[in-house]
Amino acid sequence: MSGSNPLPPGSTVGILGCGQLGRMLALAAARLGLRTHVYGDATGPAFDVVSAGTVGRFDDTAALETFARKVDVVTYEFENVPVAATEAIARIGKPVRPGPRALEVAQDRLIEKRFVTDLGLPVSPFAALDEERGTAEATAAMTHWGTSAILKSRRLGYDGKGQVLVARPTEIEAAFAALGRPDAVLERRLAFDFEVSVLVVRGLDGPIAYYDVPQNTHRGGILHRSAVPAPIPDAVNQRARDIAGTIAVALDYVGVLAVEMFYMGADAPEPLIVNEFAPRVHNSGHWTMDACAISQFENHIRAVAGWPLGSTARHSDAVMENLIGREALDWARLAADNGAALHLYGKREAREGRKMGHLNRLSPLGTLLAPGE
Amino acid sequence: MSGSNPLPPGSTVGILGCGQLGRMLALAAARLGLRTHVYGDATGPAFDVVSAGTVGRFDDTAALETFARKVDVVTYEFENVPVAATEAIARIGKPVRPGPRALEVAQDRLIEKRFVTDLGLPVSPFAALDEERGTAEATAAMTHWGTSAILKSRRLGYDGKGQVLVARPTEIEAAFAALGRPDAVLERRLAFDFEVSVLVVRGLDGPIAYYDVPQNTHRGGILHRSAVPAPIPDAVNQRARDIAGTIAVALDYVGVLAVEMFYMGADAPEPLIVNEFAPRVHNSGHWTMDACAISQFENHIRAVAGWPLGSTARHSDAVMENLIGREALDWARLAADNGAALHLYGKREAREGRKMGHLNRLSPLGTLLAPGE
Repeated sequence: MSGSNPLPPGSTVGILGCGQLGRMLALAAARLGLRTHVYGDATGPAFDVVSAGTVGRFDDTAALETFARKVDVVTYEFENVPVAATEAIARIGKPVRPGPRALEVAQDRLIEKRFVTDLGLPVSPFAALDEERGTAEATAAMTHWGTSAILKSRRLGYDGKGQVLVARPTEIEAAFAALGRPDAVLERRLAFDFEVSVLVVRGLDGPIAYYDVPQNTHRGGILHRSAVPAPIPDAVNQRARDIAGTIAVALDYVGVLAVEMFYMGADAPEPLIVNEFAPRVHNSGHWTMDACAISQFENHIRAVAGWPLGSTARHSDAVMENLIGREALDWARLAADNGAALHLYGKREAREGRKMGHLNRLSPLGTLLAPGE
Repeated sequence: MSGSNPLPPGSTVGILGCGQLGRMLALAAARLGLRTHVYGDATGPAFDVVSAGTVGRFDDTAALETFARKVDVVTYEFENVPVAATEAIARIGKPVRPGPRALEVAQDRLIEKRFVTDLGLPVSPFAALDEERGTAEATAAMTHWGTSAILKSRRLGYDGKGQVLVARPTEIEAAFAALGRPDAVLERRLAFDFEVSVLVVRGLDGPIAYYDVPQNTHRGGILHRSAVPAPIPDAVNQRARDIAGTIAVALDYVGVLAVEMFYMGADAPEPLIVNEFAPRVHNSGHWTMDACAISQFENHIRAVAGWPLGSTARHSDAVMENLIGREALDWARLAADNGAALHLYGKREAREGRKMGHLNRLSPLGTLLAPGE
């Protein structure tokens, strides 16, 4: 695909998935004069803002092919798109960006951890468990760690789903049963200071750019807040970028890649430990919509369409807060908050745990971490 | 309409007109979780980003009523919407914001000038001419002025269309004929320093807010560049806001109103002369998309939907440049300009004089007019 010409304005970007990320990608594409066509297994919030939409299952090869013939390039808004779906699209000659390799790796926590480890990058200690090998290996590892651990299904987890906290090795068996005995990994629980993430964007011909690193705070397993800049030393900031860049290059990645890391403190021998990555735009980058001239969504579209990358520079400090479930019912009060930019995703039902929108609060550069903070 | 509840997310804003302004309004509405339905006499760039679109003529009352029944409130993206169309919509009980009074006044240069004059605000000296009264009055006025003048049709002019420069009183008759002898006004040509504009937004219950005042430069009668802040003294800035606010209040206006003014220099007895106003979002406010957390488009939607106004604060200095006609064919080079935010409107043909997109360049606050500039 390297060396391709950029898709001219008026071209259509196909998006697999029709949630809020697809919606914000479509809005960013529109800014560049590009059309969008979403494909999803039901209508979702993206359908309201696109040039075209198709309701279809991800295992319906014929429907996927029909969709792909109507678009010029295909991307996706979530990492659990079946690899077979992207292969079906690639077979009829339509590029899928990021490529299937990123999906394959990101869809399976065990493959992902091994991939990162093989790059010489740090991940938390882990052990595999599944029906065949049972829990013995994990039990031995956890006993060795001497800490609590988290049991995570290898596939299809998000927002803390498919995860169970394990306090003692003797609880592993019950936790495994509680998850439904899926292929899983047990991870050592680390005493980290906080989570950060790197949003890296890589263009079609290899140029790479980084957004500034936010500090992320979760509530109930769901991202609650991302604040940029994160209170980390410059060297750690650079290390975070290097790690994310190494992963992006190893995947021959095109688009925005989000790499979550645990910050272990400035004095730790290894200050950053890779938690996981998502081959897509990411909730911890929503502040870029208001604090940067070019958002993560636009840069993802630019990369996918073969355009030059836009600036990732930040003109303001920013705090992004998610609106989860019923929090969004408070929209009228939130809209009256003169210091905030309110984003609502157009979802009809404010179900518990559902991401309904977010708020971005800007402040001048250098004020978020002003002395005293 | 005062005291109404804000339209909840998921409501539909109807937009008369489907050009780039309608498109950017629709994108802003989407950010707030509002749906949009455009109505136009042909498909236009807005159709690609809306929840629904209707192709219909503005004199087709039945089609307008059908459209209006599907939406919760109606606004418009251009000032030449027939007042009768908005009245038809109002008759079936759907609010039209801004109200028809703003349209009536803004659609006719003579009514507009008298309206502004009656508010005690300064306009350039003018004289009316039409088939009935002929050109005698205008000739006498121009002779008295002793300057060149501009003959403008009273209705349906934009981007310099419907205007002829008149060097001498003896040329008025020929200029009147060249325009097709429409109802017209002759305006004294003023030796102003430059044009500025005020983008004022007024909420449903009367709150009012102002964006910072840009300096506008034209080429061939079409806006070329808006730069903010304009190099004007604070007192002039305040006077500009006062003038725009007076007009907005007098019209009982709801939404964004753009008032163009000539800046006569700091030493002039009256530093600002009202040129004209547009009852809509405006090209000279496109910089707000990137230099403010809340753009003119979002604030117009907020006002029209009865929401609280968002902040009009600016976090950066900005220069907006229009891409006219074939200039937009250079999109690949413009997209590679790392310091600029590129906006393309999705128009297929780059016809001469057609607004195809714009570029916003940001710089830190206080740098645009730094000493030496």
